Amino acid sequence: MHSLIKDILAPSLDIKTFDDSARLRVEAESLAFTTDSYVVDPIFFPGGDIGSLAVNGTVNDLAMVGADPLFMTVGLIIEEGFELHALKEILSSMRNAADKAGVRIVAGDTKVVGKGKADRIFINTSGIGVIPVGVHISGSNARPGDRVILSGPIGNHGIAVIAEREGFKFNPPVLSDTRPLNLLSKNMLSVTKNINAMRDPTRGGLGTTLKEIAVSSGVGVLIREDAIPIEAGVRGACELLGYDPLYVANEGVLVAFVPEKDAEGVLSAMRKNPFGRNSALIGEAVAEHRGNVVLETSIGGRRLVEMLSGEQLPRIC
Amino acid sequence: MHSLIKDILAPSLDIKTFDDSARLRVEAESLAFTTDSYVVDPIFFPGGDIGSLAVNGTVNDLAMVGADPLFMTVGLIIEEGFELHALKEILSSMRNAADKAGVRIVAGDTKVVGKGKADRIFINTSGIGVIPVGVHISGSNARPGDRVILSGPIGNHGIAVIAEREGFKFNPPVLSDTRPLNLLSKNMLSVTKNINAMRDPTRGGLGTTLKEIAVSSGVGVLIREDAIPIEAGVRGACELLGYDPLYVANEGVLVAFVPEKDAEGVLSAMRKNPFGRNSALIGEAVAEHRGNVVLETSIGGRRLVEMLSGEQLPRIC
Repeated sequence: MHSLIKDILAPSLDIKTFDDSARLRVEAESLAFTTDSYVVDPIFFPGGDIGSLAVNGTVNDLAMVGADPLFMTVGLIIEEGFELHALKEILSSMRNAADKAGVRIVAGDTKVVGKGKADRIFINTSGIGVIPVGVHISGSNARPGDRVILSGPIGNHGIAVIAEREGFKFNPPVLSDTRPLNLLSKNMLSVTKNINAMRDPTRGGLGTTLKEIAVSSGVGVLIREDAIPIEAGVRGACELLGYDPLYVANEGVLVAFVPEKDAEGVLSAMRKNPFGRNSALIGEAVAEHRGNVVLETSIGGRRLVEMLSGEQLPRIC
Repeated sequence: MHSLIKDILAPSLDIKTFDDSARLRVEAESLAFTTDSYVVDPIFFPGGDIGSLAVNGTVNDLAMVGADPLFMTVGLIIEEGFELHALKEILSSMRNAADKAGVRIVAGDTKVVGKGKADRIFINTSGIGVIPVGVHISGSNARPGDRVILSGPIGNHGIAVIAEREGFKFNPPVLSDTRPLNLLSKNMLSVTKNINAMRDPTRGGLGTTLKEIAVSSGVGVLIREDAIPIEAGVRGACELLGYDPLYVANEGVLVAFVPEKDAEGVLSAMRKNPFGRNSALIGEAVAEHRGNVVLETSIGGRRLVEMLSGEQLPRIC
């Protein structure tokens, strides 16, 4: 155990201290703090792996409240007999993802459990970041009149993982969208601090996230189906497998509620960032339909978007 | 999943926000940040459970660098079919432990995996705390001349867990020592900020921890076996089971390296705290024997204390 941490975990992740806690210098009035465990199955999938997913996921949780991610911890639970080369590959992927996002991994922990007591590897990442003065983003702050902006096509992560798990082949393959969104959110906040609500629609997909914001903020949300970008491969896979793309998990898109006067500026800043190139205005918040999400369908009808009940795709993250 | 978090996790732990990150106000120059995953088997044992262990463990990791623990996150990985009443009991135990330590649980995450893909429940806790100005405690700061102070009897946690797991009955039962050490470390730091090294000897026990400090600090450590408090029940169990108490895990004792001039004062402050009532001076750091721990045995001999190789008792925390 000692050598697993000292010889593999610490050098792979560039962890420098071996005290019980990392010691950090932070200058901030307001800190963001978050945690997520990752149990994705399979651990390697088109476009990423459990390591990059775990780093990007926590970076994004911080970015969604407008924070600059600074530091991260990593907790590994490993099944006995898990291949060392796979562990090293995952740690190297974590390190790369952390470097790309500009976040430092400062502490780690490893537990090994017997064969059959875990499924290969589970990863927890926790992160802290600094929230700039004047930024107050929350899922309960959306206001009537806000424009709803989506940063890119939905459904890629869920379809990529399920395809790998079930052995479906798509041509071209659907890739997970796992990526850090902190620079994109920074670009947005450089236009205006008045972003009211922001979320990355992971488990439960865009539909569940919009419904949660509608309920928490006490607003209605009107969305145009035609305006929601979906890659052809994802659309085809969803039709084939019977999934509604509104409920398929994403790991690299965000949805933001921005006051009307700032929406165009934010949108054009987003489109300059490679991770926001396909950003689109997909709807708006309204005073009517409080707590509901109303979808204008492509064929002209309207339907209510409810929260996903149960998990459509288990172990997607 | 949504209802598991909203209806059980959040109210049990008193988590108030449902944004992607908690927003915290922290005033500090220097922050401590740590993480640990808990996979203890069994999850309920004499003197505690996986919930109190997970909270106290992270509180203690913060306290060992002299930090006041402030905030904590909780990540649960739950096996499908895990009993709801056990989950509620564990969450309530976490909440109680957090209240006792004066730490706030501010964010949580839950993942459910299929039957047979995890062993009932695994818990990750990550924590942040504030390190007071002038405090520089590290496992690599022990100096020749430092007195080595142990806060209480060793071996209780390991024996309590193994007894429960293997169905051994001791009379009276050996109880885990899981408890928060942050008030004890605060009492110590109120005497002097010159505590050089401090650790809670968990996995690997006191022997491994002392050896790590000897190596990291480049000092020798002389320890008197007679001075190390061990409860009669623990001593008996170790003899019966063939364990060396120096390598049995603890979850509620600390070992500190304190300059000679401050040692008596720190010791008497510790003895006034119920969790340090049985504190004892067990040895000292020396310039000779660099990187080694030398034990003066009860029968007058001397032996080197090495690091525990492998895990003596798996899944002890």
